[in-house]
Amino acid sequence: MDYRKTLDFLLHDWLDVGSLQSRSRFADHTRETFSAVLDTCEKIARDKFAPCNRLMDEQEPWLDGVTVRQPEGCAEAFEAYAHSGMLAASDDYEVGGMQLPCTVEIAANSFFSRANVSLSSVPMLTSGNARVLVAHGTPLQQQVFAIPQFSGKFGGTMCLSEPQAGSSLSDIATRATPDGTDYEHDPLGPRYRLRGNKMWISNGDHELTENIVHLVLAKIPSPDGKLISGPKGISLFVVPKKLVHANGELTGERNDVVVAGLNHKLGYRGAPNTLLNFGEGAFPARGESGAIGYLVGNPHEGLRYMFHLMNEARLAVGVSSTMLGYAGFESSLEYAKGRLQGRPVGPGGKDCSKPQVPIIQHADIKRMLLAQKSYCEGALALGLYCAKLIDEQRTGTPEASSEAALLLEVLIPVAKAWPSEWCLEANNLAIQILGGYGYTRDFPVEQLWRDNRLNMIHEGTHGIQGLDLLGRKVVMQQGAGLALLTRKIQETIDRAKRAEKFAVEVGALSNALERLNFATRNAWATGSPDDALANATLYLQAFGHVVLAWTWLDVGLCACFQLDTGRMEQDLCKGKLAALEYFYRYELPKIEAWLCVVETRAATCRLTEAEWL
Amino acid sequence: MDYRKTLDFLLHDWLDVGSLQSRSRFADHTRETFSAVLDTCEKIARDKFAPCNRLMDEQEPWLDGVTVRQPEGCAEAFEAYAHSGMLAASDDYEVGGMQLPCTVEIAANSFFSRANVSLSSVPMLTSGNARVLVAHGTPLQQQVFAIPQFSGKFGGTMCLSEPQAGSSLSDIATRATPDGTDYEHDPLGPRYRLRGNKMWISNGDHELTENIVHLVLAKIPSPDGKLISGPKGISLFVVPKKLVHANGELTGERNDVVVAGLNHKLGYRGAPNTLLNFGEGAFPARGESGAIGYLVGNPHEGLRYMFHLMNEARLAVGVSSTMLGYAGFESSLEYAKGRLQGRPVGPGGKDCSKPQVPIIQHADIKRMLLAQKSYCEGALALGLYCAKLIDEQRTGTPEASSEAALLLEVLIPVAKAWPSEWCLEANNLAIQILGGYGYTRDFPVEQLWRDNRLNMIHEGTHGIQGLDLLGRKVVMQQGAGLALLTRKIQETIDRAKRAEKFAVEVGALSNALERLNFATRNAWATGSPDDALANATLYLQAFGHVVLAWTWLDVGLCACFQLDTGRMEQDLCKGKLAALEYFYRYELPKIEAWLCVVETRAATCRLTEAEWL
Repeated sequence: MDYRKTLDFLLHDWLDVGSLQSRSRFADHTRETFSAVLDTCEKIARDKFAPCNRLMDEQEPWLDGVTVRQPEGCAEAFEAYAHSGMLAASDDYEVGGMQLPCTVEIAANSFFSRANVSLSSVPMLTSGNARVLVAHGTPLQQQVFAIPQFSGKFGGTMCLSEPQAGSSLSDIATRATPDGTDYEHDPLGPRYRLRGNKMWISNGDHELTENIVHLVLAKIPSPDGKLISGPKGISLFVVPKKLVHANGELTGERNDVVVAGLNHKLGYRGAPNTLLNFGEGAFPARGESGAIGYLVGNPHEGLRYMFHLMNEARLAVGVSSTMLGYAGFESSLEYAKGRLQGRPVGPGGKDCSKPQVPIIQHADIKRMLLAQKSYCEGALALGLYCAKLIDEQRTGTPEASSEAALLLEVLIPVAKAWPSEWCLEANNLAIQILGGYGYTRDFPVEQLWRDNRLNMIHEGTHGIQGLDLLGRKVVMQQGAGLALLTRKIQETIDRAKRAEKFAVEVGALSNALERLNFATRNAWATGSPDDALANATLYLQAFGHVVLAWTWLDVGLCACFQLDTGRMEQDLCKGKLAALEYFYRYELPKIEAWLCVVETRAATCRLTEAEWL
Repeated sequence: MDYRKTLDFLLHDWLDVGSLQSRSRFADHTRETFSAVLDTCEKIARDKFAPCNRLMDEQEPWLDGVTVRQPEGCAEAFEAYAHSGMLAASDDYEVGGMQLPCTVEIAANSFFSRANVSLSSVPMLTSGNARVLVAHGTPLQQQVFAIPQFSGKFGGTMCLSEPQAGSSLSDIATRATPDGTDYEHDPLGPRYRLRGNKMWISNGDHELTENIVHLVLAKIPSPDGKLISGPKGISLFVVPKKLVHANGELTGERNDVVVAGLNHKLGYRGAPNTLLNFGEGAFPARGESGAIGYLVGNPHEGLRYMFHLMNEARLAVGVSSTMLGYAGFESSLEYAKGRLQGRPVGPGGKDCSKPQVPIIQHADIKRMLLAQKSYCEGALALGLYCAKLIDEQRTGTPEASSEAALLLEVLIPVAKAWPSEWCLEANNLAIQILGGYGYTRDFPVEQLWRDNRLNMIHEGTHGIQGLDLLGRKVVMQQGAGLALLTRKIQETIDRAKRAEKFAVEVGALSNALERLNFATRNAWATGSPDDALANATLYLQAFGHVVLAWTWLDVGLCACFQLDTGRMEQDLCKGKLAALEYFYRYELPKIEAWLCVVETRAATCRLTEAEWL
């Protein structure tokens, strides 16, 4: 089944994305403009991104003296992306944007992560950087640093982690001190000198753009030179690789930022991942060591600014992960249709004199294909649903907006974590279908598996997502988020009750929902975070499976309607219904094993001592 | 906990391997000779195998004209292995062996797969090849082709697969035709000319040994030139890379076998994996094209001969997979003890002014360590148990021998498949513990994950193991194998009943065992293989988890005894008991989700049509 058909089905038939056109922000758009964007992106992804995907894996970025170099083809591909306007797809007209719904933007970007996830990280980070500046920077900071990113003239990074501070961001040690006595009077914002080492900086250096805009978290020491411990001490700075005048032109000077090294990774090899040293004096800026950076917004609010677009960033990671899974699904489906091996076992055994059959005829191969389909199309549906909630949050009525915001709080950890776990498993199954061939680098599936392994680690590890969900999101506002989600799921159940054929699913999802609420209460029954959170990752897994079961039932209702009314290709609808059936029979029952640990607050792990291991 | 301590605990305290010394075959051995073998292997693995592990991954084997080349260090490491006598560790004195129990041999070899799994495949295949010849070859074939492999002078391969025949071996198309009119009178055995292409041949060429002995499956055409379809047509040939005289000396001529290419793989990169073309005339042997090969045993019995040592081969793969998992467990444990990140969450939240703690203090990190421990140590225990069954089969009383053989039938699919799935998951968790660092090639865990991914594919894929288990092993002899396993598990349950502290485990394992038998009957209730086998892989998973739960309870009983009697290091015993508790709380409950599909003969996958996907 062609991916585009599934995407269109989810966008139009399921989510009714066209209904957004009634909002004034999207008034210039029509189904045709949405389709044109998807067409353009599908084509650029196929013609420019896909061809250099394996090349970028094999020829990792290298450090040529001081600059990171990449193989040919990358620059041309990024240029095509920038030229399409997608860097500001959902942004305001006044900053050069297209004011597309987030839903369409995410759908359009899915083609790029499917074709070349490493390269697609460049626009993802660049747009994200520019958006933080639009939200929190001064008009001049926006003009000088954000607009050129939306046009693709500059690239952007997010410099958060340090060697000693990964998940624990409050422990960053990069310092920002005022640059001269006139530091408060720079038109580009209060000017500081930054000194410190940043780790894991994706696209921290490259030659795809004329300049690179680093957004850097750093601490401003108090007058006694001490750093404020914890997140409160953190401020946000914009630090260009090459210095710029207030009119936006390059001054011709380099800033004191140097690539200290490249990380050599398991996957995502095409994306340069750098260690950046700020202010160590390698390139003294205006005669002095220290990287020049301009404060964004107020001091001490940096973490909040940086996390302003956290939901979007985590959702984007989830959808990237989904598309890596989807690419493997497509490869293994094609292989399974063509590869001849074995014969069906009849009542009398196998008849070896008959020709071999395509392996897609074997039940176990179909199982592995259905599993991939249920993981990847389910995750895609959830990702698009969350994107539409973001549109709702931004453009809906006040009530709809706050409801969407609340629902996003509980869904984002799932939208990020679930695909990173299960679409990785999809890649694992794709390798298995190809067998020995899948284990070679002659086929794409092994790279997809390596690439996808990153997604459980960055943008908040799996463990962090579990703690966020069980420790914050489902308990905040007296559990209002979980209550809202429960109502939403119940609405789908109620609609499904009217369709006789979903009796099994209605019963299973109702039970699962009750079980999930019960486990949530029991996890917190003692009120102790130690007790509640000891099994937070398993809670995250169970929560995710319930959310996906809900998503599938909702998608299935739509597919069933399309099938019954004869309005859509039968095979497409039957495929969705088969994936739904697979998910309910093979996947949803797994939540029992996870929840029984959560609800009994099993202390096995918590109480194990390091010396026993 | 040092690996050697766990190994010694399992061998001596749990399995009582010393009891084998009462068998005449092992009469020359003592606990001291066993320990000396383990000491030697541990040292060679550490000093010679481990140092070239990453190097062999980074500098893949390359084809230098006609010969496969490998980086320095490999030859010296293999030489040290050969010098230790381990190539014939369990073989008869008269072929140069040490007559060690298989249990000790497998335990000793575990050090090598833990240190360098690619290199350890050379001795594994060489010994396996020689053993097939000892079992089925003529005395002269043994003298000329097997003995030099036991000494490490020659290397060995197993040439089964072809591009069109992987899992479906009966479809091989390599032909063997009589070589001249005197073909039956060659002292080395009936002489044939082989022509065909073999695929996925590990160590198909290298310079570690003076010659390479290929064991090749091929078909002898009937007088009308046709090949017999199916496995019955397959015969076994010994095909040396360089021709040899009947006195064993090289004649100086090459045989007509050529490396057509190398497979570039995801992992196991250090092991050259070759496409071998036989008899295409690149090196005409004695003036003619066609690779010269000598028939082993009778025609048409080749598959049976080759599979003679199938149990040992599959067990060896399972233990390799286990040790890859174990190596990741050790790496991530060490990292977790040293890496500072984050703080415990107290009732009032986190106190950021306190120093960061080692991540091993976080419950979720301990969960991932306990999971790895329960997977890898459990799999190791099962592997050693199976090895002891092989010793029992070979040297026990007739009753004990046939009981051991029957038990092996049902356990070998698990001993191969379970570690390949769950010790791979252990490697996944090891990466997660290291976070971003685990995703880089500066740490060993990513390579272990890549290496281990092969084990679900070779030596019979996961799907094939499931079909073997549910389609043959548990139904053969009216289910005698499953009935025997059920009795064995019940014996452990009965012993555990006497120890009050295992009440939960006794109940859980009893239920699981009943469930497994019920599901087996129900899967076959209609008598149709289509119905029964549609979910064979899920049956394999559930079966494996029950077997491992049994293994852990048995190991736990031993650890408990050691702890109560104060005879063993407390931490070691407590660690085993924590892993046991983890397995029962977190793992065993998973079988419900798998078995409910099996026992209802869910047809979701089987009935899905290719066009819907």
